[in-house]
Amino acid sequence: MPHRIVHMLRAGGSGRRPVMLAIAGDSAAGKTTLTRGLLECLSEDRITAVCVDDYHRFDRVERRGKPFTALHPDCNHIEIMEQHLQLLAMGEPILKPVYDHGSGKLIRPELIEPRDFVIVEGLLPLYSKVARACFDITVFLDPPENLRYDWKIQRDTAKRGYTADQVRAELEMREPESAAFIRPQRKHADIVVRFGAIPGHDAPDTPLSSELLLRPTIDHPNLAGVLDRAEAMHLKLLRDTDGRPVDALHVHGYVSPEESELVKKAIWERLDVDLPFPQALGRLTGGGVSDPVAITQLMLLYHLLEADRLRMAS
Amino acid sequence: MPHRIVHMLRAGGSGRRPVMLAIAGDSAAGKTTLTRGLLECLSEDRITAVCVDDYHRFDRVERRGKPFTALHPDCNHIEIMEQHLQLLAMGEPILKPVYDHGSGKLIRPELIEPRDFVIVEGLLPLYSKVARACFDITVFLDPPENLRYDWKIQRDTAKRGYTADQVRAELEMREPESAAFIRPQRKHADIVVRFGAIPGHDAPDTPLSSELLLRPTIDHPNLAGVLDRAEAMHLKLLRDTDGRPVDALHVHGYVSPEESELVKKAIWERLDVDLPFPQALGRLTGGGVSDPVAITQLMLLYHLLEADRLRMAS
Repeated sequence: MPHRIVHMLRAGGSGRRPVMLAIAGDSAAGKTTLTRGLLECLSEDRITAVCVDDYHRFDRVERRGKPFTALHPDCNHIEIMEQHLQLLAMGEPILKPVYDHGSGKLIRPELIEPRDFVIVEGLLPLYSKVARACFDITVFLDPPENLRYDWKIQRDTAKRGYTADQVRAELEMREPESAAFIRPQRKHADIVVRFGAIPGHDAPDTPLSSELLLRPTIDHPNLAGVLDRAEAMHLKLLRDTDGRPVDALHVHGYVSPEESELVKKAIWERLDVDLPFPQALGRLTGGGVSDPVAITQLMLLYHLLEADRLRMAS
Repeated sequence: MPHRIVHMLRAGGSGRRPVMLAIAGDSAAGKTTLTRGLLECLSEDRITAVCVDDYHRFDRVERRGKPFTALHPDCNHIEIMEQHLQLLAMGEPILKPVYDHGSGKLIRPELIEPRDFVIVEGLLPLYSKVARACFDITVFLDPPENLRYDWKIQRDTAKRGYTADQVRAELEMREPESAAFIRPQRKHADIVVRFGAIPGHDAPDTPLSSELLLRPTIDHPNLAGVLDRAEAMHLKLLRDTDGRPVDALHVHGYVSPEESELVKKAIWERLDVDLPFPQALGRLTGGGVSDPVAITQLMLLYHLLEADRLRMAS
């Protein structure tokens, strides 16, 4: 039997292809907060969340003395991450490596079976062309660096047992690799999300605003009619920092619950699905609810459900 | 970009496809002995050996109280094993799970990059159709059960810290699953290898003989001319236990070094490659050399190199 062939993978997988959403961004950029809301909105048996920060080539001890941090692609099994993303995109299960942040060790891998929606979040999901080709929707989280530093110090001192100085030193060490490998992923995102004050608009101490850059690489819901009547939200045509045209959806932190509700419902209505309006949007890790976060999640939910609807119809 | 496509895997891998050899058989059937000789004969940078007994779904503690042993396909990530075999067959790397036989735990997985030849040995590599489709050459080790029991008791008491009674109890517990899942793989092998006394031919206490069933599913070297002149080796046309026609190559344990050498050289000459005759054949785990083992390894080496030659030429 010299011509036996390898058929299953080449045939494009055994099951239905899931809708794949990437949420890329630097450490403490808000990936988990965003993902959690989406998980709560879709029924558990339809969604799978995967963090791709576990593909470490070295454990914590082995990394000591190496000339790069855990952010560097050479410090990760990037080709295996790419392979696993492709398998998930084809509806195939993977045995994903697991890095234990507590002990700094690589431990027993876990079986991941893709459901209808797969959310892939992490530092480098949009790093390579092969990886990017696996996604239907790509998001990059781009908070102002000073805000991200504050978030990271808060989280790593509270949950991971570091001192603020240790976190600051780590951030400093990582900066060249953030610049080289993390931030360049921004240009490959269909949606760039920036939580923070909108310069020239938000007074200090107002709740966080969000700016969503909506690139014309995917079809966004048409919100012109709704936003014409809105006070604290604007859709603005502008040039991105690289000169490319983009729609910027500004959601101010001082948006009133009524206006926010109006826009949320409008986005939801653009989506022709027979589902109740999701309630679990905008919850923050520290408690409380943010309308800008909720509207961001709703936009992503729109894209997930729309891609699924198109797939079902085709 | 709703129609982004997954291309690398579908295109059939990035590199040259390796030659894939499966060596299946029950615990202590001699898989490692056979494999080690092949590893020693081919240069290290050309061959990769993979044991597929690490795809455990449960660790030792989790298996307690389960109604099956580690042999049962339900106790293993068979679909991941199939996926990994397909990836290797396409020349792609895998992140293989690792089961630590000492602690009975699943530990950090390891990166395996296929070289020109991939030897896959284990309990279940020929269990499913998808898995079998990945191989160019398939072998099943089929020693008499009493001999295998002796080997397993020897090995597990010496190397794994069990008592003989514990090993016997384990063998007894595994027997129904050996019958249901391991032995049925025999019928899918291109070559069935049986070390042991050849009934009616070998006096007690002669060194182990081997019987190689050579199925017409692959092209074996033509040995008729050589074996006509041989004393302690015969090629015999017979019906297998299932009634199918098969060539049986008998290599008696009392074969003389001269005759053995003659046949080994003859097999090697059938193979038109520019390589020195391999010296590391037939070494046994406990020390010593077995000519029947050497000739079996040489037959496998023939098939590996022939498949590689054909691939290079095409």
